[in-house]
Amino acid sequence: MCELLGMSANVPTDICFSFTGLVKRGGERGPHRDGWGITFYEGKGCRTFKDALPSSYSPIAKMIQDYPIKSQVIIAHIRQANRGGISLENTHPFTRELWGRYWTFAHNGQLTDYAQLDTGFFYPVGQTDSEYAFCFLLNQLYHRYHTMPAWRELSAEIKKQAAQLAEKGVFNMLLSDGEYIIAYCATHLHWITRKAPFGQAKLLDEDIDIDFYQHTTPSDIVTIIATQPLTVNEQWYKIEPGQLVVFRYGELICD
Amino acid sequence: MCELLGMSANVPTDICFSFTGLVKRGGERGPHRDGWGITFYEGKGCRTFKDALPSSYSPIAKMIQDYPIKSQVIIAHIRQANRGGISLENTHPFTRELWGRYWTFAHNGQLTDYAQLDTGFFYPVGQTDSEYAFCFLLNQLYHRYHTMPAWRELSAEIKKQAAQLAEKGVFNMLLSDGEYIIAYCATHLHWITRKAPFGQAKLLDEDIDIDFYQHTTPSDIVTIIATQPLTVNEQWYKIEPGQLVVFRYGELICD
Repeated sequence: MCELLGMSANVPTDICFSFTGLVKRGGERGPHRDGWGITFYEGKGCRTFKDALPSSYSPIAKMIQDYPIKSQVIIAHIRQANRGGISLENTHPFTRELWGRYWTFAHNGQLTDYAQLDTGFFYPVGQTDSEYAFCFLLNQLYHRYHTMPAWRELSAEIKKQAAQLAEKGVFNMLLSDGEYIIAYCATHLHWITRKAPFGQAKLLDEDIDIDFYQHTTPSDIVTIIATQPLTVNEQWYKIEPGQLVVFRYGELICD
Repeated sequence: MCELLGMSANVPTDICFSFTGLVKRGGERGPHRDGWGITFYEGKGCRTFKDALPSSYSPIAKMIQDYPIKSQVIIAHIRQANRGGISLENTHPFTRELWGRYWTFAHNGQLTDYAQLDTGFFYPVGQTDSEYAFCFLLNQLYHRYHTMPAWRELSAEIKKQAAQLAEKGVFNMLLSDGEYIIAYCATHLHWITRKAPFGQAKLLDEDIDIDFYQHTTPSDIVTIIATQPLTVNEQWYKIEPGQLVVFRYGELICD
């Protein structure tokens, strides 16, 4: 299995603290040694840092922890390979363009019979069940809508497709176009929204704590979504199996 | 205008030396202050580092100079914005999937009437003439070939399309799928192949030299393609206006 991490915020915010917690699970504390990746959106553009090396030994992951790249939407993933070898083309997140937007996708779980999925025009480059599922999802959306529909309709359609994929195995996913983060839970996915009054948080995987009050303004709203809670002293919400939730500018807008 | 840099090699090779030369043109020595990007292929996968900041001040560009990421195909670009604002979505290189391969594109020059180009299914995300040209090119190729043709046929078709684009202005480009690098020259593009016996090279833009003999094995073959020669004491070849050349595993295979 793998671990997912997402961030939605109303102001450009860095993810150094949460990413430090995730990285510890990528080789040192967890079994997720088979690559990692993180996508930062800035406006309509995005950039992805990824590596087929374990995140806890990667110089690039170290730079991401130290250099605060600020973004309103971030999607990250650490991988334990189950379908597809350990290689860059099999490393999440995956990004493709649809409707003139870059869509970024990361998956936790594993699927069977995925090679039969109709991916249409969206050819998978690698061999993972995850990339097949992403290409299938985009192909379904492309055939259903020639331009991007309103988010309520879009998220209802994605929920329907995600439920179909979940019938093939375990399908937890994060999907974003840089504005919305759409999270579908099959088994495990948690989230927390931080806003004023900000307090302290302590990482579960590392002896590091942070006082968010020192790093924020009173109007900041930041949501973190993760496979498992990353901190020990805060209240995380569990997304129920079969549930799809949508975040925008740091806030839950649909569940 | 912008500067292009490409590398094709028969063994995974780093580009620290040449990239150091290019970066100096991104803000300090040249007018190319409006972002930079570099794509490294590893097998069928690729990863891109990019920034809308000048390369000479970017901590990420600094990391790329210091941390030798080895690859057989690299495409890099530093930008002086002329069409489209300074933003991440307008920063080269651009990568899209076609025929189950990731294609990466960088452009030097500027085009007029580019918004009328038929990009079909490949919607531009940003506003640059370059991304429009790339989407147009992919759309032409997609409609002409449902799977990837042999490279001679493909490069002849790309040359035809590139010549059409060059009628709209200045169109120097590098394009790669991780195996081939296809370079089309409208005005300025140069290349050099280094192989045994390796000698010393000295950067034009920086007081740095390198003894390739210390960093290579006798069977290494490495080609560098750049808008302008990057070194002072080596013989670079100029690609003629209207000429398309193809490199694979470090060697020129078509001109």
